[in-house]
Amino acid sequence: MNRQQLIEQIFKKRSFLCIGLDSEIDKIPQHLLEFPDPVFEFNKQIIDATHDIAVAYKPNLAFYECNGTAGWQSLEKTMNYLAQKAPDVFTIADAKRGDIGNTSKQYARTFFGGSPAFDFDAVTVAPYMGEDSVSPFLTFENKWAILLALTSNKGAFDFQFLENREGGKRLFEEVLIRSQKYGNKENMMYVVGATQAEMFADIRKIVPDHFLLVPGIGAQGGSLEEVCKYGLNKDCGLLINSSRGIIFASNNTDFAEKAREEALKLQGQMDEILA
Amino acid sequence: MNRQQLIEQIFKKRSFLCIGLDSEIDKIPQHLLEFPDPVFEFNKQIIDATHDIAVAYKPNLAFYECNGTAGWQSLEKTMNYLAQKAPDVFTIADAKRGDIGNTSKQYARTFFGGSPAFDFDAVTVAPYMGEDSVSPFLTFENKWAILLALTSNKGAFDFQFLENREGGKRLFEEVLIRSQKYGNKENMMYVVGATQAEMFADIRKIVPDHFLLVPGIGAQGGSLEEVCKYGLNKDCGLLINSSRGIIFASNNTDFAEKAREEALKLQGQMDEILA
Repeated sequence: MNRQQLIEQIFKKRSFLCIGLDSEIDKIPQHLLEFPDPVFEFNKQIIDATHDIAVAYKPNLAFYECNGTAGWQSLEKTMNYLAQKAPDVFTIADAKRGDIGNTSKQYARTFFGGSPAFDFDAVTVAPYMGEDSVSPFLTFENKWAILLALTSNKGAFDFQFLENREGGKRLFEEVLIRSQKYGNKENMMYVVGATQAEMFADIRKIVPDHFLLVPGIGAQGGSLEEVCKYGLNKDCGLLINSSRGIIFASNNTDFAEKAREEALKLQGQMDEILA
Repeated sequence: MNRQQLIEQIFKKRSFLCIGLDSEIDKIPQHLLEFPDPVFEFNKQIIDATHDIAVAYKPNLAFYECNGTAGWQSLEKTMNYLAQKAPDVFTIADAKRGDIGNTSKQYARTFFGGSPAFDFDAVTVAPYMGEDSVSPFLTFENKWAILLALTSNKGAFDFQFLENREGGKRLFEEVLIRSQKYGNKENMMYVVGATQAEMFADIRKIVPDHFLLVPGIGAQGGSLEEVCKYGLNKDCGLLINSSRGIIFASNNTDFAEKAREEALKLQGQMDEILA
């Protein structure tokens, strides 16, 4: 999906909501364990209940890999189902990959390559190894690398705020600045945690036009209003992710209904913000 | 495997060689494509030919994931085969994972959890997201996190050499220093590329006792002698990885034999160095 198509979808659906499919088998409702593929069944019902108000879905690979080949199959089925049921949504493999050039190229093929691999629109990528670890993800047409800049977790303070002796920029700012030579606003986004809302103003000085993928709303405590106050741009420029706050709103048979309710709350706020 | 067992194995085999199973299906010998699982067959023959002179094997996940569930199965079979054929070797999932705490915990379970997941001794981990992204890998007995410090690729120069304004340490040094509070020499190692040989003296000042996993010998151009000159410690303290230089030494029916020849060359040098 290209940038223009994403923007059109956002303004059509009046939503910039991304739903994180962190579908941990130990946390999904018990009654689903009777299905041949409980994780897929869970995802399917979540997708059915939310695809008209979400613009993106983001499965985190950790919650699939931990079930071995069965988990990999659940993810394949989920992606096939999304392609049929909601071909207009943007799909993100939250994989946080990154390796030397020839290896990153393999990861890019895995997630962007089509059968037997996947056909995601985007992959999250860790920046530590620099340009050749990122650029293989940028050679596919209408595909995206979403680079970690400022993450939503406590450990973000260990390295991401270290200030560079030359120029005084913090590491997350150096990532934003230096990666401008890797790609552009048509094929790169950045992860910026909602728990770092006060940083969005500084970040928008460096990347005014890029889309930002924002985790940390909900379970992690970030605020939608605060993020939008400093992060919104004329094209919206934000994909706000909520995972556990939506998908685990109930762990009973009404889980999909409750997920929709939570998603609608966020979408309602987004509608007002876009207006 | 614990630290003492690893050291004993190194001095018994007179080798600190790690073989990287970057078994890209497009690069393995053509005649193997007739087997039901060509990648596993390739790995099996490489293992048969080298397990007496290698102390570790390191499959890079990228080269398995790119084949989807079939790739995941090739890796499972390879790990099961290693457990039978060479239970004394140290196994590393070169996955470069790292995510927020509850997600990293899932990755740790995947690689350290036993069936249906894997039972590797170690996983490579990216440090960008800080402590809570690493510590879930450190809670398993006799298992290891191998943190990226200074990588072997060109992109290493983008961020890893940025100097911290307070104290002037470079980012890779900050990773070494700050991660000392995450774990210790019994459950953490560091990736330091052989292409950065002149940096080993500085690195040993910060982590004199830790094991270092050293990629970049062979195809990437690093020198074994240079690395050992500054990197060796009294327990050896090094695992030197070679992937393509060994496994793709020939792409004909003699590939396993040629792989052994290349591995023996390195092991011969290691024997002298240990003496």
